[in-house]
Amino acid sequence: MPTAAHPDAPALTDEELRTLDAHWRAANYLAAGQIYLMANPLLTEPLRPEHIKPRLLGHWGTSPGLNLVYTHLNRVIKARGLDALCVWGPGHGGPAVLAGSWLEGSYSETYPDVSRDAAGMERLFRQFSFPGGVPSHVAPETPGSIHEGGELGYSLAHAYGAAFDNPGLLVACVIGDGEAETGPLAASWHSNKFLDPVHDGAVLPILHLNGYKIANPTVLSRLPESELDALLRGYGHEPLHVTGDDPAAVHRALAGALDEALDRIALMQRTAREEGIAERVHWPVIVLRTPKGWTGPAEVDGEPVAGTWRSHQVPLAMVRENPAHLRQLEQWLRSYRPEELFDADGRPVTEVLACVPEGAKRLGATPYANGGLFVRELPLPSLDTFAVPVDKPGSTLHEPTRVLGGLLAQVMNDTRSRRDFRLVGPDETASNRLQAVFGASGKAWQAGLLPVDEHLDRHGRVMEILSEHLCQGWLEGYLLTGRHGLFSCYEAFVHIVDSMVNQHIKWLRTSRELPWRAPIPSLNYLLTSHVWRQDHNGFSHQDPGFVDHVLNKSPSVVRVYLPPDANTLLSVADHVLRSRDYVNVVVAGKQPCFDWLTMDQARVHCARGAGIWDWAGTENGGEPDVVLACAGDVPTQEVLAAAQLLRRHLPQLAVRVVNVVDMTRLLPHEAHPHGMTDFEYDGLFTADKPVVFAYHGYPWLVHRLAYSRTGHKNLHVRGYKEAGSTTTPFDMVVRNDLDRYRLVMDVIDRVPGLAVRAAAVRQTMADTRTRHHTWIRAHGTDLPEVAEWSWNS
Amino acid sequence: MPTAAHPDAPALTDEELRTLDAHWRAANYLAAGQIYLMANPLLTEPLRPEHIKPRLLGHWGTSPGLNLVYTHLNRVIKARGLDALCVWGPGHGGPAVLAGSWLEGSYSETYPDVSRDAAGMERLFRQFSFPGGVPSHVAPETPGSIHEGGELGYSLAHAYGAAFDNPGLLVACVIGDGEAETGPLAASWHSNKFLDPVHDGAVLPILHLNGYKIANPTVLSRLPESELDALLRGYGHEPLHVTGDDPAAVHRALAGALDEALDRIALMQRTAREEGIAERVHWPVIVLRTPKGWTGPAEVDGEPVAGTWRSHQVPLAMVRENPAHLRQLEQWLRSYRPEELFDADGRPVTEVLACVPEGAKRLGATPYANGGLFVRELPLPSLDTFAVPVDKPGSTLHEPTRVLGGLLAQVMNDTRSRRDFRLVGPDETASNRLQAVFGASGKAWQAGLLPVDEHLDRHGRVMEILSEHLCQGWLEGYLLTGRHGLFSCYEAFVHIVDSMVNQHIKWLRTSRELPWRAPIPSLNYLLTSHVWRQDHNGFSHQDPGFVDHVLNKSPSVVRVYLPPDANTLLSVADHVLRSRDYVNVVVAGKQPCFDWLTMDQARVHCARGAGIWDWAGTENGGEPDVVLACAGDVPTQEVLAAAQLLRRHLPQLAVRVVNVVDMTRLLPHEAHPHGMTDFEYDGLFTADKPVVFAYHGYPWLVHRLAYSRTGHKNLHVRGYKEAGSTTTPFDMVVRNDLDRYRLVMDVIDRVPGLAVRAAAVRQTMADTRTRHHTWIRAHGTDLPEVAEWSWNS
Repeated sequence: MPTAAHPDAPALTDEELRTLDAHWRAANYLAAGQIYLMANPLLTEPLRPEHIKPRLLGHWGTSPGLNLVYTHLNRVIKARGLDALCVWGPGHGGPAVLAGSWLEGSYSETYPDVSRDAAGMERLFRQFSFPGGVPSHVAPETPGSIHEGGELGYSLAHAYGAAFDNPGLLVACVIGDGEAETGPLAASWHSNKFLDPVHDGAVLPILHLNGYKIANPTVLSRLPESELDALLRGYGHEPLHVTGDDPAAVHRALAGALDEALDRIALMQRTAREEGIAERVHWPVIVLRTPKGWTGPAEVDGEPVAGTWRSHQVPLAMVRENPAHLRQLEQWLRSYRPEELFDADGRPVTEVLACVPEGAKRLGATPYANGGLFVRELPLPSLDTFAVPVDKPGSTLHEPTRVLGGLLAQVMNDTRSRRDFRLVGPDETASNRLQAVFGASGKAWQAGLLPVDEHLDRHGRVMEILSEHLCQGWLEGYLLTGRHGLFSCYEAFVHIVDSMVNQHIKWLRTSRELPWRAPIPSLNYLLTSHVWRQDHNGFSHQDPGFVDHVLNKSPSVVRVYLPPDANTLLSVADHVLRSRDYVNVVVAGKQPCFDWLTMDQARVHCARGAGIWDWAGTENGGEPDVVLACAGDVPTQEVLAAAQLLRRHLPQLAVRVVNVVDMTRLLPHEAHPHGMTDFEYDGLFTADKPVVFAYHGYPWLVHRLAYSRTGHKNLHVRGYKEAGSTTTPFDMVVRNDLDRYRLVMDVIDRVPGLAVRAAAVRQTMADTRTRHHTWIRAHGTDLPEVAEWSWNS
Repeated sequence: MPTAAHPDAPALTDEELRTLDAHWRAANYLAAGQIYLMANPLLTEPLRPEHIKPRLLGHWGTSPGLNLVYTHLNRVIKARGLDALCVWGPGHGGPAVLAGSWLEGSYSETYPDVSRDAAGMERLFRQFSFPGGVPSHVAPETPGSIHEGGELGYSLAHAYGAAFDNPGLLVACVIGDGEAETGPLAASWHSNKFLDPVHDGAVLPILHLNGYKIANPTVLSRLPESELDALLRGYGHEPLHVTGDDPAAVHRALAGALDEALDRIALMQRTAREEGIAERVHWPVIVLRTPKGWTGPAEVDGEPVAGTWRSHQVPLAMVRENPAHLRQLEQWLRSYRPEELFDADGRPVTEVLACVPEGAKRLGATPYANGGLFVRELPLPSLDTFAVPVDKPGSTLHEPTRVLGGLLAQVMNDTRSRRDFRLVGPDETASNRLQAVFGASGKAWQAGLLPVDEHLDRHGRVMEILSEHLCQGWLEGYLLTGRHGLFSCYEAFVHIVDSMVNQHIKWLRTSRELPWRAPIPSLNYLLTSHVWRQDHNGFSHQDPGFVDHVLNKSPSVVRVYLPPDANTLLSVADHVLRSRDYVNVVVAGKQPCFDWLTMDQARVHCARGAGIWDWAGTENGGEPDVVLACAGDVPTQEVLAAAQLLRRHLPQLAVRVVNVVDMTRLLPHEAHPHGMTDFEYDGLFTADKPVVFAYHGYPWLVHRLAYSRTGHKNLHVRGYKEAGSTTTPFDMVVRNDLDRYRLVMDVIDRVPGLAVRAAAVRQTMADTRTRHHTWIRAHGTDLPEVAEWSWNS
């Protein structure tokens, strides 16, 4: 029995009930049709096997519930003139969202060949889960969507991201009870402690309990209602429960609950905005309990189906082959009375469309879901204001991320009124030395405040919570709705969101092929507190493999930068913050680091992505004997120290120093838009000279990028090889054979004829390494000659 | 003010209070000493700069709270004779857990050089966060630990994993309010719906709210107590609140709360076990609110420190350099009155040790935390019982995972009374076609039951929840306490636990270097529903990169297997289930797949890891003209189809077919224990002939493994290159250029002189690919010649 959410809720008129139900039935018909039919879409003739698709694919179970929400959101959007976006968490219910979009006309406007008539309906049905057609999930192809429904867990975080700094927007978010079991979703409920009722829009979660996942009941659906109610109140929400399986009663209860929720939201926003009340708001949540596969076959082959997990995907299988199933499908489809819902040409009749809003208010047409339409250029200041002065390379030290903090603070300041830039991070903004931003914006915080607190601000745009999942999900939602941002994260722990970035990259890859989707700001990572400087955190905090992870993904989307110093970090940051539709991974240290390049040199070097540092080498115009290459701040320092040792000990040796900022430059140009031609590559690295490459991460990554080059057999790469521990910075590089002494030995071992000539130098290097081991055990610090080293010493 | 958790709780006697407080003070002293001191451990002389470590590293903030819990767990373990294990979520509090272990003697028993006297105390202090010493986190090196405290989020899942099938065990789990913000932890609370009070032990979560993370307040600590209480009740717990900053009062309240909690647990277990009451149990949770950095410096340089985030790490910095800080440190350390706690030789006095339990009951000595001590060989049946008969290769089809399901069912059955084997998966056991196991065990489920449910069982050992994080965390806890298991997962979504598997691999790598840690059963993944067969799920469900991810990790731990058919899957499964201390990744399909090898052949082939399939090639004893290599079920099928086409169209060509099951065989033997020597490699792949390699995943992985081989320049790899979509199986391989026709073209293009001779054959292949594109657009199905193909056709 339905629970009236609110006894005083205005009952629907009979007319409203009738039109809402007509819309819902039409949507259910269209959802089922997509799963089964490739012809005879209006059932103008009896159903025959050849009308049925050869492969039956799709998810019926969640569809009627999603259709119900679509229908009722239509009603309130129209009645209240709302700007609304809906995030459909049970994204496997693609048939439902496509049905809603087709009914309202937004689908045919986006894809004119799928017209709002019988021919278009047949195309709508046929293309679904069909090779060359559309995915069975809500996806980039789906009008009105910012959320791929394949991997579950991120709907609510995306919804909050969309709502931040969109004060006029209502973001409804349907959360399936399956998805609700995931970690990211479970954490997302606390996002309400970060939503500013003044500057942000509202998020209305609709927890849809249809009771089952693929093959099991769901945890939340099997709790007593009082326990679930306590949980949601504990999450900070005021629940409104709607339960039932009688359509008319559920229509009434859901309409009442939605009106109640929206009235409360409007009141809360008015109180915060007009009366300046700064207390935390307990926003409503709707709990909607309806049967899985509702209105579908009650029983198939003697087993209960509707209301059970058996309706999760295709409730009637083998329909082409099984005449009884074919008959049952026809009965089921005809139970929606399509002849009442569509005219002879297949167009939805007036009654079906009575609840549908107009134009850009339609869920499938909202420009908020096509954020590129809204995006404005970020006001980026001149880098010269923040650049560190460099008279001679390697004479001064700066913490690169702290320098970047100055730039970000300026951007934060210059977007103060526009509010279209946010910085997210798992409680690490200050730890990552970006705290200058707090001069321009505090940290978003709606929970309790104490006098001891610093930089907390109910209206802040720096977002910190100890959840990489939420940082990522919020930022994705924010970017997808056309705003800008940066995620600063400990390098090792960004793997927590490996799977989320996969999905975002896939989203961008697909979106780029859709001419109607406007480009959105890139997803920018600043990975810091990196593998080489985890002095006390040790082995568990050492993992440079995120770069490897993203480089498996679409080259049209992925960019990886390893700026070696403060000015190159500024240049890279400026570039990535201006870019669109990329995932940019920037790895940079927070510890004091030598300044190598002036701002002008940095700009040129970053634009090239890789280049020779003449001043560091000894090749004097001719062909070098050896190339010392580096990528990353710590490897660059070790390579320069090695170059200095070689200059001192083997002055006749012609050494070339190459620094790589943009890792994808190493790829062949056929494999990545930034990839070098072989001509360019050989010009930098030579085709036949030994190359000793000191790389920030796993050494085999460089081989994977450069294996097809002519000189690959001469390429020797040093990097992190899981020799991690709690130790000093220099001991870390020694343990991984990336230290200056080892690099000099590598050069000696690889330049033909040098092993004999330079045996004494090699021994000196080996002895110094031994001395290091003894020293560190005794003192716990690095050798003074290393600790006090500089390029100019 | 402390809240009495339970008004009738037995007050501590004054004597108990005095001894508990002495233990706590001693632990606090030792924790602070580890962060600061390298000499003068007992403060027998005034503190001087040279007593202070040159690098001050560590986390003080969480330590006093953890010490308090250690002290009080000691009391109840001793009083009640409990077998207990504690999972320390705020693992950065290494100093606390090391202090507790040293005090009780378990540390010195494990590491005799760190004796329980002044000399040992000095070593304990000095080694902490010192190069060559011990990590600042709870880690494998820590006696009594099964949980690395570096990456946050997994403590509660680990605790549940340890408790499953350990009915006599109490697992306490301290959850920091920082960790509580993570997704995995937020989801873990619902683990109580999967804990069987009859066959499992108890988990007692202790939510420790010290109010702050690195630089921010925590969300949960800033909720009104009523809201937090509702949240925990919503999670299914009965909360007991202990709040305070007066040590005596908190000691009393915490003792009362622990007694109350343990009484309730005992009652609930008795009810379930003796009276057979099967209702879900609402277990207690303790909420402990004490100040961050409690008993540390109240103010430093005029800023409040104790009770704020400023005491997160090292509350007093620059102690060597700043005489005022040195004085303040001395005052702080002396405030614990070390002269009352340790005798002149540095041994803890009797009073300090009064609460400490004996022998294996001590938290640092519990054998449950060294699960390898308990592990029993898994009873694995003969594979011949489950093998599929193979008269001729490629004549019959089986679903490999369904065949494996038979084996797993037998293991499940044969461990029915031992209860030391579990199968976990995110609601996918049946979807992954392992449902035969339900004949031997149902699915664990303690929430509500309905008549329609199937295979749910309050005592089941198949674990399904829609959270990869929980599956992984539960299984890790189960394995670390000496039991066996398998995680079956959709291939694409196993990336959700990338970061968790990193940490588990690091744990195993470190554990292996500790002679006192006994080997534990391997963590076994079955990755199925893989990239090539996501017919309706499409692009979002296509990612074979987990193999790449784990292969970056320690080669001593990681193993990767791609069995090409049902019998090889059985052989691999048998092998991995017997193994210890590995992470085994097995990728295998669930769709019908040709049977290539008999069980005996499969055993031999899997033992070799890679081998020539004579029967499939045409080389006839001599050197081949070309090698067709494959790894993975779908690539194997395409390679065999290509071999058949070559045999038919170019019968003079000597083709060798090589199948690779164990991917690490491709690595040099210096790089991995399974790696081939160059001699072995050249024997399989030749040193100079073209190799066309069809690989299951990203093609560059094969290059990364084989780049150093002599014949690498002749290696041409096909694999998944993110050309994903919603489409048929064969269209997927065509889109990624992994199809049989493309492979034949690759061979023709690469064998010297063949391009001209075989131009007509090449054109036929190209035409067939064109025909495929036309056909699929029209029919939505694969070409009949592909759909009906078999090796014997």
